[in-house]
Parts: sequence; structure tokens; C-alpha cells
Amino acid sequence: MISKNKIKYILSLQKKQVRDEKKLFVIEGDKLIKEFIQSGKRLALLVAKPEFTSSLLPEDKAFIDEIETADLDNLKRISSLKTPHNAIALVPFPEYRTDPDEILKNLCVALDFVQDPGNLGTIIRAAAWFGIKDIVCSENCVEVYNPKVIQASMGAILHVKLHYIKLRQFLSTARKQGLPVYGTVIAGESIYSMKPSKKGIILLGNESKGISEDLMPSVTKKIMIPRFNESRYGIDSLNVSMAASIILSEFTRFKESQE
Amino acid sequence: MISKNKIKYILSLQKKQVRDEKKLFVIEGDKLIKEFIQSGKRLALLVAKPEFTSSLLPEDKAFIDEIETADLDNLKRISSLKTPHNAIALVPFPEYRTDPDEILKNLCVALDFVQDPGNLGTIIRAAAWFGIKDIVCSENCVEVYNPKVIQASMGAILHVKLHYIKLRQFLSTARKQGLPVYGTVIAGESIYSMKPSKKGIILLGNESKGISEDLMPSVTKKIMIPRFNESRYGIDSLNVSMAASIILSEFTRFKESQE
Repeated sequence: MISKNKIKYILSLQKKQVRDEKKLFVIEGDKLIKEFIQSGKRLALLVAKPEFTSSLLPEDKAFIDEIETADLDNLKRISSLKTPHNAIALVPFPEYRTDPDEILKNLCVALDFVQDPGNLGTIIRAAAWFGIKDIVCSENCVEVYNPKVIQASMGAILHVKLHYIKLRQFLSTARKQGLPVYGTVIAGESIYSMKPSKKGIILLGNESKGISEDLMPSVTKKIMIPRFNESRYGIDSLNVSMAASIILSEFTRFKESQE
Repeated sequence: MISKNKIKYILSLQKKQVRDEKKLFVIEGDKLIKEFIQSGKRLALLVAKPEFTSSLLPEDKAFIDEIETADLDNLKRISSLKTPHNAIALVPFPEYRTDPDEILKNLCVALDFVQDPGNLGTIIRAAAWFGIKDIVCSENCVEVYNPKVIQASMGAILHVKLHYIKLRQFLSTARKQGLPVYGTVIAGESIYSMKPSKKGIILLGNESKGISEDLMPSVTKKIMIPRFNESRYGIDSLNVSMAASIILSEFTRFKESQE
């Protein structure tokens, strides 16, 4: 059975500072853990009920450095969820290069100060669905390895690379290459009438403040999702993750129709 | 200052059974409460810090049956949020008829066993944005007056009527009128290649099980959001509220281009 010290160690990873230092993050849930293994990711530690561990194939276990057995009480203590799953694992931060030129070879998403972990997780899920490979985040965005982000993104995190860099510089690299920077604003061109480019950046802003002022000059094309409701009350905006879903659908729809 | 008994009374409304009996629900937050008043909704009770109450105009106050003063401690006790706002209010259930013929005069959304309050709230928000007036819910869907639904829908709840009725009957009424029932499934026609009708029902299913088997025969048109990611791992589905946003955008987009 897992030791108290190890439980403490896992709990300490709920803090960003400790995650950054150990370069490990936590994933929870039978399905998610199996998806990580099956897609070839290494687990640094698996903490699970015996039933879960025995459901793994020997070739699955080869991807796990260390396995600890736990009962429901242990899992409850470790889990960040109200109802814990049968297994929790620690995963090393994936290593990848952040090369703006490489990222800009495809359509990508940039996020400016997105704060809500559920929103970031959902945006990752939408991005993965629509084949986006890279999300570039301002340095004040919520961290991708926050347990709530991982929970909301589900397995989609396996498909999208997140890069935390200075957005202004990144946007200016795009502009130098003549690529469009689409910014979602209240008064922009309707996404239904515009012709989306196959490459460029879709820039989404903070939940309540939108795109920050110092980035606006980098936006080459202002876009918006038309509202079909004329009331003055109670319907100011779409949530940023809904907006991301709709815009990514629209860009992909158009790309598909061109091919 | 608000009495202990009144605090207890408000807390009791966190239970669905009590809400149903008193026909009252709770809204929280300065902005949301003002939107309710400004759109002409009556508040049965306002519990607020003096600053909030004094920020109301006399004509606003005419919409409030009873006002109680509270301090932060009181509000903390009443609120369902970690960080309470300056004001909480009780709102009588809106009264409206559920007439399938009336609902079917416009494009509407039907939800089969949607369980997560955040999802329902987000779907209401998307519906309001895209001008949908009615959402028809199976009787086992999460209740619209659940505090988490209200929180997620924000003011959008002012624009959309939710009807909890037997879905099978409702779908069959639509079919008798020759209206399409669009069901979102894994293997359906791409929403990008179909021609959406201006009327009919968009049926969305449960978070993990999709549309229930007994409703599938009522679906006249199976649709899906194409996935642009061929991986076998970690990307099974879009969240139901993202799917709703994308599909409503697509239907509206098409309707607009026809007009």
C-alpha cells in the first residue's frame, strides 16, 4: 500500500511551483491513463486499485516506471475530484521545441490571458478535434498542467502542444511573414462572410477583458460571431471556449470546402 | 440585517424539492440581478449589501417585493459560490405555456438526459446567442433552476424557455408535421455538407451515452461534426455544449445566407 510520504508528494504537485520543479503533472481516471499509455507516453508513477493494475497488459506496464497500490481512502486523499477514479498517475512534462516558424506553418490558436482552467481545457479539446497542433499562450494564461485544465481537456492534451511565450513577439513574427492575425472583437467582420485563410493565428482574449490593448495593433483582421438576439440584457458575449469551438469549426469548414 | 430564519429559508432553496414547492429560484451577482430587473422580471426578495441596494433606482426597486440588508458574512453563508457577490435574489419561476405546435414554429433544441449543470447553462447561452427561443428537455435532464445552471447560463436564461416534457411525444409531433429531427451521432452526415432546414429540432444526447436508443427511431436526419484528427486516442467526442455551439452556429449561418 502507498506510503503517507508518497501521498504527500503527490499532493504537493497540486502546486504549480512544485510541478515546475519536478517537471511532473497529475492525470486522473482509468480511461485517460490508458490513453496516455496507449499513445506511448511514459508514466513516472501509477497509483491504482489492484483491479486497475491487473487490467493492464504487460506491454502497458512497460511504460510505467513505478506502481503503487491504493485503496479508495488513499485515492480520495490524493484526488482533486470529489469522487476519485480507480487510478491516478504522474506524467513527466512532455518536451518539445517552441519554434515560431514551425508553429506558423499551420493555422494555430493564440490565447491572451485566458484564466479559467475549464476554458483552457475545453479550448484544447476543440483544437485537437479540429486538427490544430499548437496553442500559443501569453505567459499570464492559466498553466496547462493545472489539474482542472487536464480534467477538462481529457485526452485532447495528447494532441496539442502548448507554448507559453511572449505573445506580442509571436504575433509580430506572423505579421512579418505576411500571415493574418485574426482577433475576436465585438465589432468585427462576421465569421460567416469572411474568407478564412488556411494559415495564420486565431487570437482569443481574456474572459472578461477580451484581447489586451497592447496586442490589438498586431491584429490584422477583426472578426466576430454574429449574435442573433437583439436584446440589450443578459447576452453580452459567448464564453471564450464556445467562441473558440465555433471559430475553429468555421475555419475548418472553409478549409475543407477548398480542398 | 437579515434574520437567521431567512438565511435558512434561502439555503433551503438549494434543494430542488423546495424550489418546486415555493416556485422560487436563486440568482447571484450584481450584474445578473440588475439584468433581471431591467428586463422587467420581478424579484421576490433581494438580499444585498447596502451599497448595492442604494445603487438601485427607485423604478428598479418597484420590481422588488422585499429587500433585506446583509453583510459579507451573511452573503457567504447564503451563497453557493466560494466568493459571494454583493447581492443575491429570489426570483419566481417564470410562467409560460408549453405548446409543442407553438415551439415547432421555429428551429428549437431538444436535450435528452443532459446531466451536467454547466453544460445545460452553456447550451442556454449558445441558444440565446443564436436566437433559439425554446429548449425542450427530457424529464431526466438537470433542472434549469439548479444554481450551477443559472450561474453558467448567466443572463441568457432571460431569453430562452425550457420545457420539461416527454421527448418521444414531442419528437413525434414534429415528425407528424413533416419537420426534421436532427440527431447528433458519431456516424452522421457532416454538418458542413448538409443543408439545414429553417425549422425542426436539433436533438442532443447525454454526455457519455449520447441519444438514448428509444429516441433514435424519431431521428430523421443523423448529423455529426467532422473530426480533423485521425488519432485513435484521446479524442472521442466533443463536449455536448461545444457541439451545441458549433451546430447552432452552422444552422444559423445557413439560415442567414438564405435570407
